[in-house]
Amino acid sequence: MAHYDLIVRNADIATVGDRYRADIGVKGGRISAIAQDLEGSATRELDAAGRLVTPGGVDGHCHFDQPTSDGSKFADDFETGTRSAACGGTTTVLPFALQQRGHSIQAAVDDYHRRAEGKACVDYAFHLIVADATKDVTQRELPQLIEKGYTSFKIYMTYDDLKLGDRQIIEVLATARRHGAMTMIHAENSDCIAWLTEQLLDAGLTAPRYHAASRPMAVEREATHRAIALAELIDTPILIVHVSGREAVEQIHWARGRGLPIHAETCPQYLFLSAEDLGIDENDPMHGARCICSPPPRDKANQQFIWNGLSSGLFTIVSSDHAPFNMNGPDGKRVAGDDASFDRIPNGIPGVETRLPLLMSEGVMAGRIDIHRFVELTATNPARLYGLYPRKGTIAVGGDADLVIWDQFAPGEEITIRNDMLHHAADYTPYEGMKLRAWPATTVSRGRLVWHDGRFDAAPGSGLFLPCLRPRAPRDGNPLEKWL
Amino acid sequence: MAHYDLIVRNADIATVGDRYRADIGVKGGRISAIAQDLEGSATRELDAAGRLVTPGGVDGHCHFDQPTSDGSKFADDFETGTRSAACGGTTTVLPFALQQRGHSIQAAVDDYHRRAEGKACVDYAFHLIVADATKDVTQRELPQLIEKGYTSFKIYMTYDDLKLGDRQIIEVLATARRHGAMTMIHAENSDCIAWLTEQLLDAGLTAPRYHAASRPMAVEREATHRAIALAELIDTPILIVHVSGREAVEQIHWARGRGLPIHAETCPQYLFLSAEDLGIDENDPMHGARCICSPPPRDKANQQFIWNGLSSGLFTIVSSDHAPFNMNGPDGKRVAGDDASFDRIPNGIPGVETRLPLLMSEGVMAGRIDIHRFVELTATNPARLYGLYPRKGTIAVGGDADLVIWDQFAPGEEITIRNDMLHHAADYTPYEGMKLRAWPATTVSRGRLVWHDGRFDAAPGSGLFLPCLRPRAPRDGNPLEKWL
Amino acid sequence: MAHYDLIVRNADIATVGDRYRADIGVKGGRISAIAQDLEGSATRELDAAGRLVTPGGVDGHCHFDQPTSDGSKFADDFETGTRSAACGGTTTVLPFALQQRGHSIQAAVDDYHRRAEGKACVDYAFHLIVADATKDVTQRELPQLIEKGYTSFKIYMTYDDLKLGDRQIIEVLATARRHGAMTMIHAENSDCIAWLTEQLLDAGLTAPRYHAASRPMAVEREATHRAIALAELIDTPILIVHVSGREAVEQIHWARGRGLPIHAETCPQYLFLSAEDLGIDENDPMHGARCICSPPPRDKANQQFIWNGLSSGLFTIVSSDHAPFNMNGPDGKRVAGDDASFDRIPNGIPGVETRLPLLMSEGVMAGRIDIHRFVELTATNPARLYGLYPRKGTIAVGGDADLVIWDQFAPGEEITIRNDMLHHAADYTPYEGMKLRAWPATTVSRGRLVWHDGRFDAAPGSGLFLPCLRPRAPRDGNPLEKWL
Amino acid sequence: MAHYDLIVRNADIATVGDRYRADIGVKGGRISAIAQDLEGSATRELDAAGRLVTPGGVDGHCHFDQPTSDGSKFADDFETGTRSAACGGTTTVLPFALQQRGHSIQAAVDDYHRRAEGKACVDYAFHLIVADATKDVTQRELPQLIEKGYTSFKIYMTYDDLKLGDRQIIEVLATARRHGAMTMIHAENSDCIAWLTEQLLDAGLTAPRYHAASRPMAVEREATHRAIALAELIDTPILIVHVSGREAVEQIHWARGRGLPIHAETCPQYLFLSAEDLGIDENDPMHGARCICSPPPRDKANQQFIWNGLSSGLFTIVSSDHAPFNMNGPDGKRVAGDDASFDRIPNGIPGVETRLPLLMSEGVMAGRIDIHRFVELTATNPARLYGLYPRKGTIAVGGDADLVIWDQFAPGEEITIRNDMLHHAADYTPYEGMKLRAWPATTVSRGRLVWHDGRFDAAPGSGLFLPCLRPRAPRDGNPLEKWL
Repeated sequence: MAHYDLIVRNADIATVGDRYRADIGVKGGRISAIAQDLEGSATRELDAAGRLVTPGGVDGHCHFDQPTSDGSKFADDFETGTRSAACGGTTTVLPFALQQRGHSIQAAVDDYHRRAEGKACVDYAFHLIVADATKDVTQRELPQLIEKGYTSFKIYMTYDDLKLGDRQIIEVLATARRHGAMTMIHAENSDCIAWLTEQLLDAGLTAPRYHAASRPMAVEREATHRAIALAELIDTPILIVHVSGREAVEQIHWARGRGLPIHAETCPQYLFLSAEDLGIDENDPMHGARCICSPPPRDKANQQFIWNGLSSGLFTIVSSDHAPFNMNGPDGKRVAGDDASFDRIPNGIPGVETRLPLLMSEGVMAGRIDIHRFVELTATNPARLYGLYPRKGTIAVGGDADLVIWDQFAPGEEITIRNDMLHHAADYTPYEGMKLRAWPATTVSRGRLVWHDGRFDAAPGSGLFLPCLRPRAPRDGNPLEKWL
Repeated sequence: MAHYDLIVRNADIATVGDRYRADIGVKGGRISAIAQDLEGSATRELDAAGRLVTPGGVDGHCHFDQPTSDGSKFADDFETGTRSAACGGTTTVLPFALQQRGHSIQAAVDDYHRRAEGKACVDYAFHLIVADATKDVTQRELPQLIEKGYTSFKIYMTYDDLKLGDRQIIEVLATARRHGAMTMIHAENSDCIAWLTEQLLDAGLTAPRYHAASRPMAVEREATHRAIALAELIDTPILIVHVSGREAVEQIHWARGRGLPIHAETCPQYLFLSAEDLGIDENDPMHGARCICSPPPRDKANQQFIWNGLSSGLFTIVSSDHAPFNMNGPDGKRVAGDDASFDRIPNGIPGVETRLPLLMSEGVMAGRIDIHRFVELTATNPARLYGLYPRKGTIAVGGDADLVIWDQFAPGEEITIRNDMLHHAADYTPYEGMKLRAWPATTVSRGRLVWHDGRFDAAPGSGLFLPCLRPRAPRDGNPLEKWL
Repeated sequence: MAHYDLIVRNADIATVGDRYRADIGVKGGRISAIAQDLEGSATRELDAAGRLVTPGGVDGHCHFDQPTSDGSKFADDFETGTRSAACGGTTTVLPFALQQRGHSIQAAVDDYHRRAEGKACVDYAFHLIVADATKDVTQRELPQLIEKGYTSFKIYMTYDDLKLGDRQIIEVLATARRHGAMTMIHAENSDCIAWLTEQLLDAGLTAPRYHAASRPMAVEREATHRAIALAELIDTPILIVHVSGREAVEQIHWARGRGLPIHAETCPQYLFLSAEDLGIDENDPMHGARCICSPPPRDKANQQFIWNGLSSGLFTIVSSDHAPFNMNGPDGKRVAGDDASFDRIPNGIPGVETRLPLLMSEGVMAGRIDIHRFVELTATNPARLYGLYPRKGTIAVGGDADLVIWDQFAPGEEITIRNDMLHHAADYTPYEGMKLRAWPATTVSRGRLVWHDGRFDAAPGSGLFLPCLRPRAPRDGNPLEKWL
Repeated sequence: MAHYDLIVRNADIATVGDRYRADIGVKGGRISAIAQDLEGSATRELDAAGRLVTPGGVDGHCHFDQPTSDGSKFADDFETGTRSAACGGTTTVLPFALQQRGHSIQAAVDDYHRRAEGKACVDYAFHLIVADATKDVTQRELPQLIEKGYTSFKIYMTYDDLKLGDRQIIEVLATARRHGAMTMIHAENSDCIAWLTEQLLDAGLTAPRYHAASRPMAVEREATHRAIALAELIDTPILIVHVSGREAVEQIHWARGRGLPIHAETCPQYLFLSAEDLGIDENDPMHGARCICSPPPRDKANQQFIWNGLSSGLFTIVSSDHAPFNMNGPDGKRVAGDDASFDRIPNGIPGVETRLPLLMSEGVMAGRIDIHRFVELTATNPARLYGLYPRKGTIAVGGDADLVIWDQFAPGEEITIRNDMLHHAADYTPYEGMKLRAWPATTVSRGRLVWHDGRFDAAPGSGLFLPCLRPRAPRDGNPLEKWL
């Protein structure tokens, strides 16, 4: 008779493909059996009591303890960041090892491992930010890092210390193609933003809300079209990160219709926030800074376009883009002072803990997307895109026992988001006061109950680093052929 | 210690969401457990030996023993049709109970049950063809039939004895919305086809290949746009059946981008055949008749558009539209004589047995779509669309044990399609001579090995009729609201 | 030395192509010379004093004294209608000879001539409304009428007593192609409107403003797409009349991008009115009836789309669709009573006199379109489309001396539209109170000053009937060829 | 009784707006009167004998005697270039004063005047190529040059010594907006071309035909989209030069549908040549070099898209992009040797003389565009875009007497293009051997018969430099407003 480390009984299991009632048997951190009335004993049994059980979330885009150049400091390190993740149902995170111009990527990876080790409470892998795409980087270092399990790159089309020119983007994409890696692209036109910012500052329009005016939709659309064209040139997939609204969505929709392998990510901020949230609070001109992120949230009509993209299949993943800065204190949003112009305020908002509950409540329970799509967007697809599948991202025999057991609430009995119930180190949440109809009751990470009965229980350092597989086969052929 | 009716060991299981190695335990025709090294005994054990195992196919569009009005006769009845399905990996079929004008649908259902009973070898459900959408039909009969498990309708925008006007289509869609049913639409503009046909016949252009000229892409596109508009009006999902090429694809792509719930089906004939296959064989002017179906196959560029739609997510399902007529004999393609004009040749081609192998070989193994998409298109999505999920369409605990174990062949060792290796009653296959890299080794239907070791083994009548669930919740609200 | 009947000196002449200062010499109703400092004497000289002079307007779509089937009566007959036209700068009108089902078109033409003769004050031609496209009509009668100078047809896709089915539309288009005529299409889906109307009435939503809800944009879009498809099938130009907003515009834009010869008309009501104008006045529930026309005015965003279509070149012409019914009295808007449901209120608004001033003021002087586009849309293009060019629609040697000399007003000195300053017989104008920056100072019709110094001066019957040329060459080839 | 310098009698005059028979009276180089049976005497009378008379062509894009950086030499200087223009019906040319990096534009203008003076045989104006958009250039020099009559700029997105970055493009567009100038943009993505070129050369694919592979359609499309986005940002019109095919056309079509003021130019090479013309001649590997220009000619399907764009109104102008290099001799196409790789072959083809006849024959007489569109594309619109209207570009009282009187040939009596009948100095024409149905019989430039009876008759230096008007009003408002 089999013995399990953990049996979860009476689970209402939902995966990308399936929905069924069964018991889940866990051995050595992995799912060993799924059955009706599973026979066998267990060290621990947990009765899901018919509640919904989904795969542990995979957050494909979050920033913890990332070096900055303006004196600011990310509110979360690997300990508080992964703690917050766990309590929000996310069992795998993918933050970024950021190359400094003039330095190797390996140096960034080494540094980032030092920041993570002994701190991470859930499993993690690293994306690589390529900020200096020299020949040595694209031809020697990236291939070596791919071999070692760093198989996804992020590149920027804006930000002076990060942005790559078209030629460098091409070289990175060619490397990704040749070695089977995945490339994420932050698509905004740098020169347009710089010009608009100058115009705004010259006109004295410096308040946080002008951040949105400095990066209008057309600026994101242009860069999105260009990124698509470069991916088409090299004939390799890309992911456009944090798509914010209609015009970018239309470009991606157009690319898909042509059969191009363009993936897209969006984030809760583009579903729930709008440019109005950057608006002026009379008592605190800095108030809007809490919602400054890039691209900026747009308007209600654009939110609807993002929802359409979730239900229609246009988006591949929903990530948090968790990038937490404190509203109070000298090293957060106010690093350049209380009356800093919008361009000197750190970009980013916290969200790793609220990502799943927001989407479960307002997506699934509000009828905008079905439960399978929820799992796909938040767990299976990010795991697949970044080479973590089948270990992560699903509930299947052989995979890690990463699970979320959900509490779901009837109308009128919603839970209200308050920053003090969250587990990140940031001093605010942009979703303060929102009422949600779902929240994780239990989070299981490799068979461990890291969040249960309102308690977080995981030791710093208990999260594992996950080397990533190549998300696709390397392709030797020259992309040139298709143009001949 | 558990006892199973059947254990399939060492299966390389692929579902919409997952891919993993496990053993599958079957009890009472259902999957009872999935585990690594499943403990327990079994009446029969089958070693999959690491071969790919997918859910049994669900063919959402096939015609068996359907009454005709021109003296022709479908080559397959329920016995030969379901036999052919089983041998090609399909374990569930959905043919059509066809209402005769002036008669009730119930009469068609009763008649069709008589044709199926004692004959079907695999499980089946019925779509209803609504050819006379009277008030009694839409307000009384269809709701009653939905209650009884007939939850999907097919309607035609062409064919004189079947077509509905826009108003009738609206009434059917309103019924589908109100009662949670699904509507399939054959979208071609009847008047355009009639006019073009007259012009062609007047010009003496009567050979089979002019069938394609009589129903050009624009005619399908127009009806597709109209069907989308009517679905938008009523705010309820539809499925456009047998989409043949670019222009219709573009309309559906456009609708999806607007957030409209438009599903689409295509068939192997639009991936592998072209209008040239309707061309004249000098020795047999009737030769091209074997590929006459509607809409007609288009050209190579359109085939590529259909492949793009499969990989991009545009299509929801791939069905066979199996509609077999013999090339020889008086009641098949030649029913109106050896030199009949194209408009008098029965429409349809056989394909229930070749659907899965064609798509596995040329889709999955040729790298055009991945295995998850294959399962989605051929099994999970048709099961979901038509209310058969979770019993059918996947490999999951609690579902029917309907499985396909695949033989896959290396390049150079392909299997060649010959009509005499197929199990339908039709005297030809349009795919004669094609070399494929995959074929079902074993088909399991509710735990029974109906196709194994090159032998078909299922008694006529052993297939069950499946009442269908409502594919979605009934909606009471008036669609009018969105226009106010 | 030459003698002229009339010389207009110091004209600031604007045509589709040109803008220049010159004198215009008129002989026998035609322009005989255009020159700087024209030598010669004249019976009458008029000093334009540098004011703008444009071609007399050609109104390609207006209804005078048209038979009705509901007891209502058009407020304008040929006398008041053409008087109103003249005073608004329009020197050529094209109303409709309407075929009654079961009767010949010739009968309608004969009847309509009787209504026009002795009444018309400016020149006129007839469009033919084909309401019964029998074989005799399409194959015998229409070709004969084309020979006689009736070279444009209008057909309806809605209205029970007028609408043609797709097959009849095809036959009309084939006739137009074969004989070089032009076809205008009223594109709204009849069945959708009927269904929505029933739903609205069943729900007690009967006030005028529900007229808009009964014919939403999607209903116009569908019919527009269908009309385009039928024109594509026959490969012959059509004009979509009174396009009201974005979705129809997008279909036409799409068709143009494919190289299809689809022309489009819009009207001032889609630029200046909106669905809100159908709203309820508490003191007079019937108030909104004054703006009931079909398609209904949409919203502000749609108005902007129509303006974009004017400036971008999408639209071919701007017509009035003058269809005047009195608000007071028993035979106008209230023909079915003061509390008639919206579907029983006559459709149409007056506008033949305000068309040019509205577009000159809010289009040209507000900077939305240039003066050349104004001339093109209001005079040259309608003359060309309907076979009246080069006699009408321009200012060129050899053409009729039909001119408008404009008064233009500085901001703050606008003219305010009041119904009592207009010359139609209708008892209201929907533009009451609008302030305009331009109004015709003088209208010249074949050299006669029909509107000058605030006085109308033309005898009933002085307008000529104009037989129209074929707007394009007849085409013998079968459109079928492109599908083979 | 009036006396004229020239009377052209019995002219079949065609302008953008009109077509009529009249006599044209010319005084002092200007059209003084247009009349039926013009009274008066004339120094010279010319009987057009009912032949078609169009405005003298305005070639908005041609290169004469332009400095190069690779040792090559343009085959035509101002004398031979304008001679060739005159003999092909073009009476106004707009070549480019090219700024050298590190130098002022004024220096280029001064140099270019020296090259033109005493040589030009027809009238000319200058575009300015801005290759170094410093603050001094955009804020001081360009505004001054606009004042002096240089009101159009050309900028490049490719070519190492010419290309501007996005920020520089923005500054140029902002200057154009503020001062009422027009900006022409060469839209190809420089980095993509560089990368593809390296790949091709590395693979040994160096023959002329690989020029096309080095600049595929997607590369032009991307830059076109980007140029549109930048113009949208600044809210000012641009002209995309030499659009070559479908994908760029679609971007422009999309922009127009959004109401953006994007103009487009195409050239005969995109209507009549294809990538195959770059193909290898076994006896002369360099043969294909004769058709090397950028963007490269595409394929037949793309030619059709360009024709559609001409008839549909998408294109604003047709220019020659005359850029002549000799096939023989050391300073033409072979400047880098007989076996130079494609990237070292001078780009450009001759075409100033063939532009009008090609478009008259294959456009107008073949029924693809009408005569009014011909005039618009080749004369009126370029004159308007570049501030030369109403002096140039039409046939109207007050304008320059620039005319073309056409010989038109019946089928079977076509003229065959031979390089030795042309009047440029280049040693080949890419259209050698083409048969045309039209050729200018007479070209009139300010009343002078510069091409008549097969003889060229104009003294070098008799062409006038034309200062250009601002094509639109300067706009002070900050474009920023629309983003706030």
